[in-house]
Amino acid sequence: MKANLKDLAKDLGISVSTVSKALRDSYEIGEKTKQRVLAKAAELGYTPNPYAGFLRNNKSKTIAIVVPELTNNYFIQAISGAEEIAQENNYHILIYTTNDNFEKEKSIIKHLMNGRVDGVLLSISSTTSSYMHFNELIQNGVPIIFFDRICHEIETAKITTNDFASGFLATEHLIKNGCRDIAYLSLSEHLSIDNKRKQGYFEALNKYDIKIDETRIINCGVDEKMNTKKIKKLLSGSKIPDGIFASVERLALKVYHVCNSAKISIPQKIKVISFSNLRTADLLNPSLTTITQPAYEIGKEAAKILFKHLSKRKSVLLNENIIIDSVLTIRNSTKK
Amino acid sequence: MKANLKDLAKDLGISVSTVSKALRDSYEIGEKTKQRVLAKAAELGYTPNPYAGFLRNNKSKTIAIVVPELTNNYFIQAISGAEEIAQENNYHILIYTTNDNFEKEKSIIKHLMNGRVDGVLLSISSTTSSYMHFNELIQNGVPIIFFDRICHEIETAKITTNDFASGFLATEHLIKNGCRDIAYLSLSEHLSIDNKRKQGYFEALNKYDIKIDETRIINCGVDEKMNTKKIKKLLSGSKIPDGIFASVERLALKVYHVCNSAKISIPQKIKVISFSNLRTADLLNPSLTTITQPAYEIGKEAAKILFKHLSKRKSVLLNENIIIDSVLTIRNSTKK
Repeated sequence: MKANLKDLAKDLGISVSTVSKALRDSYEIGEKTKQRVLAKAAELGYTPNPYAGFLRNNKSKTIAIVVPELTNNYFIQAISGAEEIAQENNYHILIYTTNDNFEKEKSIIKHLMNGRVDGVLLSISSTTSSYMHFNELIQNGVPIIFFDRICHEIETAKITTNDFASGFLATEHLIKNGCRDIAYLSLSEHLSIDNKRKQGYFEALNKYDIKIDETRIINCGVDEKMNTKKIKKLLSGSKIPDGIFASVERLALKVYHVCNSAKISIPQKIKVISFSNLRTADLLNPSLTTITQPAYEIGKEAAKILFKHLSKRKSVLLNENIIIDSVLTIRNSTKK
Repeated sequence: MKANLKDLAKDLGISVSTVSKALRDSYEIGEKTKQRVLAKAAELGYTPNPYAGFLRNNKSKTIAIVVPELTNNYFIQAISGAEEIAQENNYHILIYTTNDNFEKEKSIIKHLMNGRVDGVLLSISSTTSSYMHFNELIQNGVPIIFFDRICHEIETAKITTNDFASGFLATEHLIKNGCRDIAYLSLSEHLSIDNKRKQGYFEALNKYDIKIDETRIINCGVDEKMNTKKIKKLLSGSKIPDGIFASVERLALKVYHVCNSAKISIPQKIKVISFSNLRTADLLNPSLTTITQPAYEIGKEAAKILFKHLSKRKSVLLNENIIIDSVLTIRNSTKK
């Protein structure tokens, strides 16, 4: 076991309180005593408890990253990007997942309220319907930076991709490859990014004079069984769509599974495009056309803004919208 | 901003030190003062700094999970499993990746030495060649539990899958489906799990009287370009193997890429099986036959053992080997 304050005090024949004050460079202790304590600390290999330091300078040297789920390549890559910057700054990273659950998100934020972290990078849950908990955290002096699933209502830095333009691009790509009846698979009506992707989809339909059919907007959610049911319904019967635009990769994978079971061939019968950071997109059967977000860069950028802010000790993060463009990668799932 | 000690002291007209001692229930402070301080703290909504608590009871209520990489579905699922148990125990999780780098692993362990965490779950880097840093951490009172990539040399709890039996099963499956010239793609000669998988491969070859050919053992590593080069070499020329057993999924994906480029058809020309927790294994072209580890359960089990130990405040974790079996899922990549 390593030496502690008691060991030092015993060896020096002085009180624990004096040792502690000496190590804290207190004015109450003379220079000679301080030097004796430091020499003994070095001799015994004493290292101070890191949390003692936190109490003095109010820095935990820790940030939290709060994401809806870990089984999503986008979030893993964003976390990896943020981790690179955190390590450069000698910071530690706490990871929390909300499982897209509003109550769990509130509970996590409450736990971060009292100084455990210096700042938070967060992507909100798809079921989050009010933002009081974020405001409370910021008022407690803990800055939040939103990435991907942002919250417009909070004045802070927000990092997203060009969701509207990417939604337009994805839909236009399907139209140019012959689709006229395109369904949009939405993740959540609560999410700003989802709405922007959908608006881009509407805009592309408008440009090519394709009438918007509200029954082709499929509102999916957290309940995977319900999602399967809705997608099965969409892909059964005599009039199925000729194109699918999925707002997240797990919905595109569900379309693949349903098409496999129902023997609907992609891309001959139906073309599929999805927002996705799937590493195996090019190895799927057929390979999946994707809108890929620069997730790693988004994570890095979010962390950079946070550390810049922490180094300046400003009280409030300025409102700021940072957008990093996504990339369309055309593969076989949308082939003419 | 929330109330701090200074605010309390100012409002009560007493010193910060007195407030602090009162909140710590110090014998130096009278009951009446303590009650006044507590009442004022409640009135102003004061919450104590969590790190102050850590100093008193020497519990950070935090554990660290150290893994080689995040872009590996096995580790993500294991982390998710551990997170579930941590939340049940009201613990926080710090995440660190070593990028399979020995120096980085040592540096992370050093950072965890001084009380930041109560315990560590760890899967060692594939380049780790000595274990002093683990012993030092344990001697500092921080227990380590190994999972997947374990270290036999350290006396503690270790959780793995049945690597030998699974290696045997994977190889036997290839042999039963007609393979006679099977290559083994190794991740690292340093890793115990890799050696056990390889021993299982040898044993299956022995059982079916197939001569071991050392040139069919491909020692891959951290350098992705070098891995590609080695796999390309293996799959070129007139005599390529008729079966591949990959010890990790990223090597199997590399085989898919090389086969695609070289127009080598799987499974007609070559059959492929891999240890993998890939969510899209069934959607690949062709779908990938896998040995799937119960990663989520392994993460849960590792966390459970750690929390059980922490609750008992025993000084040393007993040596213990826990094995949770993997599952063979047969798909098209090994079809006869």
